[in-house]
Amino acid sequence: MASPEIDALTQALAKLPGLGPRSARRAVLHLIKKREAALVPLLAALERVGRNLATCSTCGNVDTTDPCGICADPRRDARALCVVEEVADLWALDRSRLFPGRFHVLGGRLSALEGIRPEDLSIDALVRRLEEGGIDEVVLAMNATLEGQTTAHYIAERIEGLPVRVTQLAHGLPVGGELDYLDEGTLAQALRARRPVA
Amino acid sequence: MASPEIDALTQALAKLPGLGPRSARRAVLHLIKKREAALVPLLAALERVGRNLATCSTCGNVDTTDPCGICADPRRDARALCVVEEVADLWALDRSRLFPGRFHVLGGRLSALEGIRPEDLSIDALVRRLEEGGIDEVVLAMNATLEGQTTAHYIAERIEGLPVRVTQLAHGLPVGGELDYLDEGTLAQALRARRPVA
Repeated sequence: MASPEIDALTQALAKLPGLGPRSARRAVLHLIKKREAALVPLLAALERVGRNLATCSTCGNVDTTDPCGICADPRRDARALCVVEEVADLWALDRSRLFPGRFHVLGGRLSALEGIRPEDLSIDALVRRLEEGGIDEVVLAMNATLEGQTTAHYIAERIEGLPVRVTQLAHGLPVGGELDYLDEGTLAQALRARRPVA
Repeated sequence: MASPEIDALTQALAKLPGLGPRSARRAVLHLIKKREAALVPLLAALERVGRNLATCSTCGNVDTTDPCGICADPRRDARALCVVEEVADLWALDRSRLFPGRFHVLGGRLSALEGIRPEDLSIDALVRRLEEGGIDEVVLAMNATLEGQTTAHYIAERIEGLPVRVTQLAHGLPVGGELDYLDEGTLAQALRARRPVA
């Protein structure tokens, strides 16, 4: 048997999403073989993140500073706000570099099934941010799921009347999508939102 | 963009086998969200392994002690020695709990293509262990690949004449193997090594 220390490392790695017991063992062997090139940098990176982890008190992003790098960046357009469900969504949008504004992380989505109510999400904080003024447009970038869309509708109703333009991400064919392989829901959305050929 | 610290952690994780950039990001988000349950134990486990890592000077196993837990275990049968290519193979065999003896890790396999020669593997150390006496049987547990089998043949020749029984793992149908789906090489091995029905 491997030593208890190595077993503990295997078990800790196996709990990460995307890794099982087998791939965790391979990862441990890799870390052990490449001590200087793999284990030492991972340890240092983990230590630094563990020490400095902070949730941005403005937008809910996770970073090593508060306010986070995005909220503190003066080149960001403070008048556009993109509302997302999770930090992962924020990171995905930010990687695309397509949205020049700032973000607001709800921390989840409304779900009758999981018992998640409006007060469990940071919706009140969003409303306060909008009431403070200075924001012209809110992009509701919820997932295209039933729960995501329910959340978007709820938020749209809550902020109705505020002097803010509310938009949401377009739904339709994904790039590369073949009609034959797409579900009826997507086809229905794409057809309903059809546009004149330019 | 995520902070440089978080980016560095993502990159360190993405280098592990089985993880790519995407799964590394998911893993980082998991570590960040479950700071106490995931990040802290992983950090502690990594630290402990990094501090105590040792290669067994007897068998080449990687452990946190030298000699390793297997070599130091008095309940192990010191008269049977199983020779494997890599530490991963040792761990796989040891997990099965089928081999009661000790191990010898070669550190690879002979390969003309990769320029790996006998002196690059711990073959001399194996011969010395056998010459010291006290070992009755050597099981050559190389992979069933061309290079693994070449290595096994080479070792068998090197230790010919020593008062030791040399065996190798049986080749044939894997458990659950269906003839229709197996390669011709496996079928040929299984046919050549056919045995009388008991």
